[in-house]
Amino acid sequence: MPPLQLPPNLKFGPFSVTSQVFHLSPSRLSFGLVNLKPLLPGHILVCPVRSVPRLSQLSATETADLFNTVRHVSRTLQRVYRATSFNFAVQDGVDAGQSVPHVHVHVIPRQNGDYDDRGGGDRIYDAMDGEEGDIGKAFLEMQRMRDQRLKDGTRDFAGGPDSDRKARSEEEMKREAEWLRSEIEKDRVEGEGEA
Amino acid sequence: MPPLQLPPNLKFGPFSVTSQVFHLSPSRLSFGLVNLKPLLPGHILVCPVRSVPRLSQLSATETADLFNTVRHVSRTLQRVYRATSFNFAVQDGVDAGQSVPHVHVHVIPRQNGDYDDRGGGDRIYDAMDGEEGDIGKAFLEMQRMRDQRLKDGTRDFAGGPDSDRKARSEEEMKREAEWLRSEIEKDRVEGEGEA
Repeated sequence: MPPLQLPPNLKFGPFSVTSQVFHLSPSRLSFGLVNLKPLLPGHILVCPVRSVPRLSQLSATETADLFNTVRHVSRTLQRVYRATSFNFAVQDGVDAGQSVPHVHVHVIPRQNGDYDDRGGGDRIYDAMDGEEGDIGKAFLEMQRMRDQRLKDGTRDFAGGPDSDRKARSEEEMKREAEWLRSEIEKDRVEGEGEA
Repeated sequence: MPPLQLPPNLKFGPFSVTSQVFHLSPSRLSFGLVNLKPLLPGHILVCPVRSVPRLSQLSATETADLFNTVRHVSRTLQRVYRATSFNFAVQDGVDAGQSVPHVHVHVIPRQNGDYDDRGGGDRIYDAMDGEEGDIGKAFLEMQRMRDQRLKDGTRDFAGGPDSDRKARSEEEMKREAEWLRSEIEKDRVEGEGEA
Protein backbone atom coordinates (compact mmCIF):
# COMPACT_ATOMS: atom_id res chain seq x y z
CA MET A 1 0.00 0.00 0.00
CA PRO A 2 1.21 3.56 -0.67
CA PRO A 3 1.75 5.62 2.50
CA LEU A 4 -1.29 7.33 4.02
CA GLN A 5 -1.62 10.89 2.71
CA LEU A 6 -1.80 12.63 6.07
CA PRO A 7 -2.76 16.27 6.59
CA PRO A 8 0.40 18.43 6.75
CA ASN A 9 1.88 18.84 10.22
CA LEU A 10 -0.53 16.35 11.83
CA LYS A 11 -0.11 16.44 15.59
CA PHE A 12 -1.45 14.75 18.67
CA GLY A 13 -1.37 17.58 21.18
CA PRO A 14 2.20 18.93 20.99
CA PHE A 15 3.56 15.70 19.47
CA SER A 16 4.26 14.99 15.81
CA VAL A 17 2.69 11.74 14.70
CA THR A 18 3.15 9.99 11.40
CA SER A 19 4.20 6.36 11.57
CA GLN A 20 1.77 5.57 14.41
CA VAL A 21 -1.24 6.69 12.38
CA PHE A 22 -3.14 3.72 10.96
CA HIS A 23 -6.28 5.44 9.74
CA LEU A 24 -7.55 8.73 8.38
CA SER A 25 -11.32 9.08 7.94
CA PRO A 26 -12.59 9.74 4.39
CA SER A 27 -13.60 13.28 5.43
CA ARG A 28 -10.03 13.76 6.79
CA LEU A 29 -11.47 15.06 10.07
CA SER A 30 -10.41 12.14 12.31
CA PHE A 31 -7.47 9.77 12.61
CA GLY A 32 -6.55 6.65 14.52
CA LEU A 33 -3.17 6.02 16.10
CA VAL A 34 -1.68 3.01 17.79
CA ASN A 35 -0.69 3.38 21.38
CA LEU A 36 2.81 3.59 22.83
CA LYS A 37 1.76 1.57 25.84
CA PRO A 38 -1.43 -0.34 25.05
CA LEU A 39 -3.25 -1.49 28.21
CA LEU A 40 -4.51 -4.51 26.30
CA PRO A 41 -3.74 -5.73 22.76
CA GLY A 42 -5.41 -3.47 20.22
CA HIS A 43 -5.84 -0.50 22.56
CA ILE A 44 -5.79 2.45 20.13
CA LEU A 45 -6.76 6.12 20.13
CA VAL A 46 -9.10 7.98 17.78
CA CYS A 47 -8.65 11.77 17.57
CA PRO A 48 -9.94 14.74 15.63
CA VAL A 49 -7.40 16.15 13.16
CA ARG A 50 -8.00 19.62 14.56
CA SER A 51 -6.15 19.74 17.86
CA VAL A 52 -8.45 21.00 20.61
CA PRO A 53 -8.53 19.77 24.21
CA ARG A 54 -12.28 19.49 24.81
CA LEU A 55 -15.19 17.73 23.13
CA SER A 56 -17.24 20.91 23.49
CA GLN A 57 -14.79 22.64 21.13
CA LEU A 58 -15.54 20.25 18.27
CA SER A 59 -18.20 21.05 15.70
CA ALA A 60 -21.20 18.76 15.21
CA THR A 61 -19.58 17.46 12.01
CA GLU A 62 -16.27 16.75 13.74
CA THR A 63 -18.04 14.99 16.64
CA ALA A 64 -20.06 12.85 14.24
CA ASP A 65 -16.97 11.90 12.27
CA LEU A 66 -14.93 11.16 15.41
CA PHE A 67 -17.37 8.61 16.81
CA ASN A 68 -18.25 7.12 13.46
CA THR A 69 -14.52 6.59 12.99
CA VAL A 70 -14.49 4.83 16.38
CA ARG A 71 -17.37 2.63 15.18
CA HIS A 72 -15.65 2.02 11.86
CA VAL A 73 -12.22 0.97 13.13
CA SER A 74 -13.78 -1.09 15.95
CA ARG A 75 -15.22 -3.47 13.39
CA THR A 76 -11.71 -4.41 12.29
CA LEU A 77 -10.32 -4.43 15.85
CA GLN A 78 -13.10 -6.81 16.86
CA ARG A 79 -12.12 -9.22 14.12
CA VAL A 80 -8.33 -9.11 14.39
CA TYR A 81 -8.16 -9.05 18.20
CA ARG A 82 -11.13 -11.44 18.65
CA ALA A 83 -12.81 -8.88 20.90
CA THR A 84 -16.21 -9.65 22.37
CA SER A 85 -16.69 -6.17 23.87
CA PHE A 86 -15.11 -2.70 23.91
CA ASN A 87 -14.45 0.07 26.35
CA PHE A 88 -14.75 3.50 24.78
CA ALA A 89 -13.60 6.31 27.04
CA VAL A 90 -12.82 10.00 26.81
CA GLN A 91 -11.03 11.87 29.59
CA ASP A 92 -12.39 15.31 28.72
CA GLY A 93 -10.21 17.74 30.66
CA VAL A 94 -7.45 17.57 33.25
CA ASP A 95 -9.78 16.82 36.17
CA ALA A 96 -11.00 13.74 34.32
CA GLY A 97 -7.45 12.42 33.93
CA GLN A 98 -6.58 13.83 30.49
CA SER A 99 -2.81 13.92 29.99
CA VAL A 100 -2.55 15.19 26.39
CA PRO A 101 -4.64 18.30 25.62
CA HIS A 102 -6.09 16.92 22.38
CA VAL A 103 -9.44 15.08 22.34
CA HIS A 104 -8.81 11.32 22.14
CA VAL A 105 -11.15 8.37 22.42
CA HIS A 106 -9.61 5.31 24.03
CA VAL A 107 -10.77 2.21 22.17
CA ILE A 108 -9.97 -0.93 24.17
CA PRO A 109 -10.92 -4.36 22.80
CA ARG A 110 -12.12 -6.68 25.58
CA GLN A 111 -12.48 -10.40 26.10
CA ASN A 112 -13.93 -12.37 28.99
CA GLY A 113 -11.37 -12.50 31.81
CA ASP A 114 -8.75 -10.50 29.91
CA TYR A 115 -7.74 -8.52 32.98
CA ASP A 116 -8.23 -11.16 35.66
CA ASP A 117 -4.49 -11.51 36.24
CA ARG A 118 -4.34 -7.81 36.99
CA GLY A 119 -7.19 -7.71 39.48
CA GLY A 120 -10.33 -7.96 37.33
CA GLY A 121 -11.93 -6.21 34.37
CA ASP A 122 -12.61 -2.87 36.01
CA ARG A 123 -8.91 -2.36 36.87
CA ILE A 124 -8.37 -1.37 33.26
CA TYR A 125 -9.60 2.09 34.19
CA ASP A 126 -7.13 2.40 37.04
CA ALA A 127 -4.43 1.52 34.57
CA MET A 128 -5.76 4.11 32.12
CA ASP A 129 -5.65 6.85 34.72
CA GLY A 130 -2.44 5.72 36.40
CA GLU A 131 1.25 5.66 35.52
CA GLU A 132 0.80 2.69 33.19
CA GLY A 133 -1.65 4.54 30.95
CA ASP A 134 -0.06 7.99 31.06
CA ILE A 135 -0.08 8.75 27.36
CA GLY A 136 1.45 12.19 27.81
CA LYS A 137 4.46 10.76 29.61
CA ALA A 138 4.90 8.01 27.05
CA PHE A 139 4.84 10.51 24.19
CA LEU A 140 7.33 12.74 25.98
CA GLU A 141 9.69 9.78 26.37
CA MET A 142 9.39 8.95 22.69
CA GLN A 143 10.03 12.57 21.74
CA ARG A 144 13.13 12.59 23.92
CA MET A 145 14.44 9.45 22.24
CA ARG A 146 13.89 10.98 18.80
CA ASP A 147 15.66 14.19 19.77
CA GLN A 148 18.56 12.20 21.16
CA ARG A 149 18.92 10.22 17.95
CA LEU A 150 18.87 13.43 15.92
CA LYS A 151 21.49 14.93 18.19
CA ASP A 152 23.64 11.82 17.87
CA GLY A 153 23.37 12.17 14.11
CA THR A 154 22.02 8.67 13.72
CA ARG A 155 18.89 7.60 11.97
CA ASP A 156 18.89 4.07 13.19
CA PHE A 157 18.85 2.54 16.62
CA ALA A 158 21.61 4.25 18.52
CA GLY A 159 22.63 4.91 22.08
CA GLY A 160 22.61 2.52 24.98
CA PRO A 161 20.47 -0.53 25.43
CA ASP A 162 17.73 1.64 26.82
CA SER A 163 17.30 3.90 23.82
CA ASP A 164 17.63 0.84 21.64
CA ARG A 165 14.62 -0.65 23.33
CA LYS A 166 12.59 2.52 22.86
CA ALA A 167 13.54 2.78 19.21
CA ARG A 168 12.40 -0.74 18.57
CA SER A 169 9.16 0.08 20.20
CA GLU A 170 8.66 2.87 17.66
CA GLU A 171 9.40 0.41 14.87
CA GLU A 172 6.88 -1.97 16.39
CA MET A 173 4.23 0.71 16.43
CA LYS A 174 4.89 1.47 12.80
CA ARG A 175 4.50 -2.19 11.88
CA GLU A 176 1.31 -2.47 13.92
CA ALA A 177 -0.09 0.66 12.28
CA GLU A 178 0.66 -0.66 8.80
CA TRP A 179 -0.84 -4.02 9.61
CA LEU A 180 -4.01 -2.49 11.11
CA ARG A 181 -4.37 -0.25 8.10
CA SER A 182 -4.21 -3.19 5.73
CA GLU A 183 -6.79 -5.07 7.82
CA ILE A 184 -9.15 -2.05 7.78
CA GLU A 185 -8.67 -1.88 4.03
CA LYS A 186 -9.76 -5.54 3.76
CA ASP A 187 -12.97 -4.80 5.66
CA ARG A 188 -13.63 -1.79 3.47
CA VAL A 189 -13.25 -3.76 0.26
CA GLU A 190 -15.38 -6.61 1.58
CA GLY A 191 -17.99 -4.16 2.87
CA GLU A 192 -18.21 -2.60 -0.58
CA GLY A 193 -18.51 -6.02 -2.12
CA GLU A 194 -21.60 -6.62 -0.03
CA ALA A 195 -23.30 -3.41 -1.11
CA MET B 1 -43.14 23.45 30.62
CA PRO B 2 -45.46 20.89 28.98
CA PRO B 3 -44.30 17.28 29.42
CA LEU B 4 -41.70 15.97 26.95
CA GLN B 5 -43.40 14.26 24.01
CA LEU B 6 -41.53 10.98 24.20
CA PRO B 7 -41.60 8.26 21.54
CA PRO B 8 -44.26 5.67 22.41
CA ASN B 9 -43.04 2.81 24.59
CA LEU B 10 -39.61 4.34 25.15
CA LYS B 11 -37.39 1.86 26.96
CA PHE B 12 -33.91 1.59 28.37
CA GLY B 13 -33.12 -2.05 27.74
CA PRO B 14 -36.07 -3.96 29.21
CA PHE B 15 -37.08 -1.05 31.48
CA SER B 16 -39.80 1.50 30.88
CA VAL B 17 -38.54 5.03 31.34
CA THR B 18 -40.55 8.20 31.37
CA SER B 19 -40.08 10.46 34.36
CA GLN B 20 -36.30 10.00 34.39
CA VAL B 21 -35.94 11.30 30.84
CA PHE B 22 -34.74 14.90 30.79
CA HIS B 23 -33.92 15.31 27.12
CA LEU B 24 -34.92 14.11 23.69
CA SER B 25 -32.76 15.21 20.76
CA PRO B 26 -34.46 17.27 18.01
CA SER B 27 -34.13 14.34 15.61
CA ARG B 28 -35.78 12.11 18.27
CA LEU B 29 -32.97 9.56 17.87
CA SER B 30 -31.33 10.01 21.30
CA PHE B 31 -32.43 10.72 24.85
CA GLY B 32 -30.87 11.56 28.19
CA LEU B 33 -31.92 10.08 31.50
CA VAL B 34 -30.93 10.82 35.06
CA ASN B 35 -29.30 8.05 37.00
CA LEU B 36 -30.79 5.99 39.81
CA LYS B 37 -27.45 5.94 41.57
CA PRO B 38 -25.25 8.75 40.29
CA LEU B 39 -21.58 8.20 41.09
CA LEU B 40 -21.11 11.96 41.29
CA PRO B 41 -23.65 14.79 41.10
CA GLY B 42 -24.89 15.18 37.53
CA HIS B 43 -23.87 11.69 36.39
CA ILE B 44 -26.38 11.00 33.61
CA LEU B 45 -26.80 8.58 30.70
CA VAL B 46 -27.33 9.35 27.01
CA CYS B 47 -28.88 6.56 24.91
CA PRO B 48 -30.17 5.95 21.41
CA VAL B 49 -33.98 5.69 21.23
CA ARG B 50 -33.62 2.45 19.29
CA SER B 51 -32.72 -0.20 21.83
CA VAL B 52 -29.67 -2.13 20.65
CA PRO B 53 -26.83 -3.42 22.83
CA ARG B 54 -23.79 -2.47 20.74
CA LEU B 55 -22.42 0.68 19.17
CA SER B 56 -21.71 -1.29 16.00
CA GLN B 57 -25.47 -1.82 15.60
CA LEU B 58 -26.19 1.91 15.38
CA SER B 59 -26.34 3.67 12.02
CA ALA B 60 -23.95 6.53 11.22
CA THR B 61 -26.83 8.96 11.77
CA GLU B 62 -27.71 7.46 15.16
CA THR B 63 -24.05 7.49 16.24
CA ALA B 64 -23.65 11.12 15.19
CA ASP B 65 -26.82 12.13 17.04
CA LEU B 66 -25.88 10.16 20.16
CA PHE B 67 -22.53 11.88 20.68
CA ASN B 68 -23.75 15.28 19.61
CA THR B 69 -26.45 14.88 22.25
CA VAL B 70 -23.68 14.09 24.74
CA ARG B 71 -21.89 17.26 23.66
CA HIS B 72 -25.12 19.25 23.80
CA VAL B 73 -26.28 18.25 27.29
CA SER B 74 -22.74 18.48 28.68
CA ARG B 75 -22.78 22.22 28.10
CA THR B 76 -25.64 22.56 30.58
CA LEU B 77 -24.19 20.01 33.01
CA GLN B 78 -20.91 21.94 33.01
CA ARG B 79 -22.74 25.11 34.02
CA VAL B 80 -25.17 23.75 36.61
CA TYR B 81 -22.73 21.32 38.27
CA ARG B 82 -19.72 23.66 37.92
CA ALA B 83 -17.82 20.90 36.16
CA THR B 84 -14.28 21.55 34.97
CA SER B 85 -13.96 18.22 33.13
CA PHE B 86 -16.01 15.19 32.09
CA ASN B 87 -15.64 11.47 31.85
CA PHE B 88 -17.47 9.99 28.88
CA ALA B 89 -17.56 6.20 28.87
CA VAL B 90 -19.32 3.40 27.04
CA GLN B 91 -19.21 -0.19 28.24
CA ASP B 92 -19.87 -1.79 24.87
CA GLY B 93 -20.76 -5.39 25.65
CA VAL B 94 -20.85 -7.67 28.68
CA ASP B 95 -17.09 -8.23 28.79
CA ALA B 96 -16.59 -4.47 29.10
CA GLY B 97 -18.91 -4.30 32.13
CA GLN B 98 -22.22 -3.49 30.40
CA SER B 99 -25.16 -4.35 32.67
CA VAL B 100 -28.13 -3.14 30.57
CA PRO B 101 -28.11 -4.34 26.93
CA HIS B 102 -28.89 -0.92 25.47
CA VAL B 103 -26.10 1.44 24.33
CA HIS B 104 -25.58 4.12 26.97
CA VAL B 105 -22.92 6.80 27.32
CA HIS B 106 -22.01 7.62 30.92
CA VAL B 107 -21.56 11.38 31.26
CA ILE B 108 -19.85 12.23 34.56
CA PRO B 109 -19.13 15.86 35.46
CA ARG B 110 -15.77 16.21 37.23
CA GLN B 111 -14.10 18.73 39.49
CA ASN B 112 -10.60 18.82 40.91
CA GLY B 113 -10.40 16.45 43.89
CA ASP B 114 -14.04 15.36 43.63
CA TYR B 115 -13.26 11.73 44.34
CA ASP B 116 -10.37 12.17 46.76
CA ASP B 117 -12.41 10.98 49.73
CA ARG B 118 -13.08 7.76 47.87
CA GLY B 119 -9.47 6.99 46.95
CA GLY B 120 -8.74 9.41 44.07
CA GLY B 121 -10.14 10.39 40.69
CA ASP B 122 -9.53 7.13 38.89
CA ARG B 123 -11.63 5.16 41.40
CA ILE B 124 -14.72 6.49 39.68
CA TYR B 125 -14.27 3.73 37.11
CA ASP B 126 -14.12 1.05 39.75
CA ALA B 127 -17.38 2.41 41.09
CA MET B 128 -18.85 2.40 37.58
CA ASP B 129 -17.98 -1.23 37.05
CA GLY B 130 -18.71 -2.38 40.60
CA GLU B 131 -21.78 -2.88 42.75
CA GLU B 132 -22.20 0.85 43.29
CA GLY B 133 -22.55 1.60 39.61
CA ASP B 134 -24.58 -1.47 38.60
CA ILE B 135 -27.28 0.25 36.59
CA GLY B 136 -29.02 -2.99 35.69
CA LYS B 137 -29.43 -3.93 39.32
CA ALA B 138 -30.66 -0.46 40.26
CA PHE B 139 -33.28 -0.53 37.50
CA LEU B 140 -34.39 -4.01 38.54
CA GLU B 141 -34.90 -2.76 42.11
CA MET B 142 -36.93 0.18 40.87
CA GLN B 143 -39.04 -2.09 38.70
CA ARG B 144 -39.69 -4.37 41.65
CA MET B 145 -40.82 -1.44 43.77
CA ARG B 146 -43.19 -0.29 41.04
CA ASP B 147 -44.65 -3.77 40.65
CA GLN B 148 -45.10 -4.03 44.39
CA ARG B 149 -46.98 -0.75 44.53
CA LEU B 150 -49.24 -1.86 41.68
CA LYS B 151 -49.88 -5.17 43.45
CA ASP B 152 -50.66 -3.34 46.67
CA GLY B 153 -53.15 -1.23 44.76
CA THR B 154 -51.48 1.97 45.82
CA ARG B 155 -50.25 4.77 43.63
CA ASP B 156 -48.42 6.66 46.30
CA PHE B 157 -45.58 5.73 48.56
CA ALA B 158 -46.65 2.52 50.23
CA GLY B 159 -45.05 -0.40 51.99
CA GLY B 160 -42.41 -0.40 54.67
CA PRO B 161 -39.78 2.22 55.28
CA ASP B 162 -37.58 0.60 52.68
CA SER B 163 -39.97 0.85 49.76
CA ASP B 164 -40.83 4.33 50.94
CA ARG B 165 -37.21 5.33 50.50
CA LYS B 166 -37.06 3.88 47.01
CA ALA B 167 -40.28 5.62 45.97
CA ARG B 168 -38.99 8.95 47.13
CA SER B 169 -35.88 8.33 45.12
CA GLU B 170 -38.05 7.97 42.01
CA GLU B 171 -39.72 11.29 42.87
CA GLU B 172 -36.29 12.82 43.27
CA MET B 173 -35.22 11.61 39.88
CA LYS B 174 -38.33 13.09 38.34
CA ARG B 175 -37.62 16.45 39.93
CA GLU B 176 -33.99 16.34 38.82
CA ALA B 177 -35.06 15.46 35.27
CA GLU B 178 -37.52 18.36 35.13
CA TRP B 179 -34.95 20.75 36.52
CA LEU B 180 -32.25 19.64 34.09
CA ARG B 181 -34.68 19.94 31.21
CA SER B 182 -35.52 23.52 32.13
CA GLU B 183 -31.80 24.36 32.41
CA ILE B 184 -31.09 22.84 28.99
CA GLU B 185 -33.99 24.88 27.62
CA LYS B 186 -32.39 28.05 29.00
CA ASP B 187 -29.12 27.24 27.18
CA ARG B 188 -31.01 26.54 23.98
CA VAL B 189 -32.85 29.85 24.07
CA GLU B 190 -29.67 31.75 24.93
CA GLY B 191 -27.74 29.87 22.25
CA GLU B 192 -30.35 30.85 19.66
CA GLY B 193 -30.17 34.43 20.86
CA GLU B 194 -26.47 34.44 19.99
CA ALA B 195 -26.99 33.18 16.45
